[in-house]
Amino acid sequence: MIITILSGGVGGARFARGVREHLRREHPDAELRIIVNTGDDMWLAGLRITPDLDSVMYTLAGANDEVRGWGRIGESERVSSELNAYGVGWPWFTLGDLDLGTHIARTSMLRDGLTLSEATARIQSRWDVGATLIPVTDSEVETHVVVEGGSMHFQEWWTRHRATIPALDFEQRGFENAVATNAAFDAIAQADVILVAPSNPVVSIGTILGIPGIQTALGAAAAPVVGVSPIINGAVVRGMADACLTTIGVETTAQAVAEHYGPRNNAGLLDAWLIDSGDEAAVAGIDIHRVPLWMSDLDTSAQLAKDALRAAGI
Amino acid sequence: MIITILSGGVGGARFARGVREHLRREHPDAELRIIVNTGDDMWLAGLRITPDLDSVMYTLAGANDEVRGWGRIGESERVSSELNAYGVGWPWFTLGDLDLGTHIARTSMLRDGLTLSEATARIQSRWDVGATLIPVTDSEVETHVVVEGGSMHFQEWWTRHRATIPALDFEQRGFENAVATNAAFDAIAQADVILVAPSNPVVSIGTILGIPGIQTALGAAAAPVVGVSPIINGAVVRGMADACLTTIGVETTAQAVAEHYGPRNNAGLLDAWLIDSGDEAAVAGIDIHRVPLWMSDLDTSAQLAKDALRAAGI
Repeated sequence: MIITILSGGVGGARFARGVREHLRREHPDAELRIIVNTGDDMWLAGLRITPDLDSVMYTLAGANDEVRGWGRIGESERVSSELNAYGVGWPWFTLGDLDLGTHIARTSMLRDGLTLSEATARIQSRWDVGATLIPVTDSEVETHVVVEGGSMHFQEWWTRHRATIPALDFEQRGFENAVATNAAFDAIAQADVILVAPSNPVVSIGTILGIPGIQTALGAAAAPVVGVSPIINGAVVRGMADACLTTIGVETTAQAVAEHYGPRNNAGLLDAWLIDSGDEAAVAGIDIHRVPLWMSDLDTSAQLAKDALRAAGI
Repeated sequence: MIITILSGGVGGARFARGVREHLRREHPDAELRIIVNTGDDMWLAGLRITPDLDSVMYTLAGANDEVRGWGRIGESERVSSELNAYGVGWPWFTLGDLDLGTHIARTSMLRDGLTLSEATARIQSRWDVGATLIPVTDSEVETHVVVEGGSMHFQEWWTRHRATIPALDFEQRGFENAVATNAAFDAIAQADVILVAPSNPVVSIGTILGIPGIQTALGAAAAPVVGVSPIINGAVVRGMADACLTTIGVETTAQAVAEHYGPRNNAGLLDAWLIDSGDEAAVAGIDIHRVPLWMSDLDTSAQLAKDALRAAGI
């Protein structure tokens, strides 16, 4: 059995860890593939940074900082203060020393001519990930945010300004000519079930769906597509996804996001949609399942994964 | 008054610090320019490493590790162990965390289209260097070492193998088409005295002399050229310069190196040559000055600088 997840960063990583745990417990022969958003990627200080790929990798490897919620555990910032002294990089964007090891290694491989997929495979081979991380595209795509008077990279809006500057729109640069990876297409076509992680519907899942060919592949997939709502009790669980939803005119409700994704039998994404026990939703063509969505620990995350597979009839 | 030094790494840096000290004491209005070897430079882990420029900069900035003899004081190696875990870089070539800050900053500037000269100017502006560091060339030149059965980058021979593998020859790759920097030509043409630091005569000073146009510029310079012998009492002061001299068929004596450099009035480099009190040398066309060469502290280094300027009639 092949399970494919569409995932953003931290939230998707936590969900993926639950899926891996559930598979280890009840489907030890199953294979887990994770198609990861690359729209937050950027060049910074001459290095290629891929925040979502790293978040998923560190989390699955058990190398993530659970307390801080992102980055490597035991992190330090000696290099970063040097870069600040040289006026290189973004002083508000933390590049931890351990994390920089990953960025330097990746960048070195890219400069040697490897694709992002090839570099990602080499990078993750160091860790016991128990899944295959697949960049949705090897093309460089970047989400920019249109604000009053200009635009900025998504990371500047998100990390520096904490999404407090009103976003008028999201520009997905480089998307028209982006080419989805073969591994992403294979993961969709060969899957027995496709899970949409409770990631940001706009800049994480939306980016994956925006890569040419991905929506068509999902529509044609033999496997059912089961989504997990990123909203619990009418609020986003973490991050500032509500600001992104507001920008594209979608309410922060499980109902509105389900409508935004739409039913797969009508040119949309979903066959089933897991919402929290405290939420309501009803969309023609989408099976709604009310289950506890809060992933407080590995057991509740694994249970959520079990519920998601059940919604796919597994 | 403009003083120009031709310099390699650590030994040249120590000499340059003495010159700066002497100038501060007795010629506070003098300007110090240092033309630095770039033949040890390399791409490693996707980063541009310039060991000699950094050694001179750290030493003049007082940020160098005096005990270890190279690199930054208070250095750590957290990133380096990550790179090793990813199989990126050379495990035997230490990239300290603080030092990596410099490499990342430089590489970022080069990737942004700056020349090495421009990047060096920006990098050194952070520090109180009290001199202008000038890469001899912005072109990428690399010294490779021919050994039995093949060749390797100079750093591999020098740092990994401690110069223990017999070197059959040195290959200076990229030199034919290298272009000396305008700042190097200006530093030579405008100088009131040109000092050749007690650096490796083969791979440091030899590299500088090997950049097209530099020898001609030195020959035409209005200023006298005063060299300081890297040999004290018939042995190299530090490093393994004797292995390099042997390879090119030059004995490790103050006499042999003076002959190798040659008198400027006969197509060579030197007008004057400072040798240690314990050494002997006599070469037609070169004024020999016997003075203590051992730079045990800042005062003895400054005295050596004073002796060198005196040999130039200053």
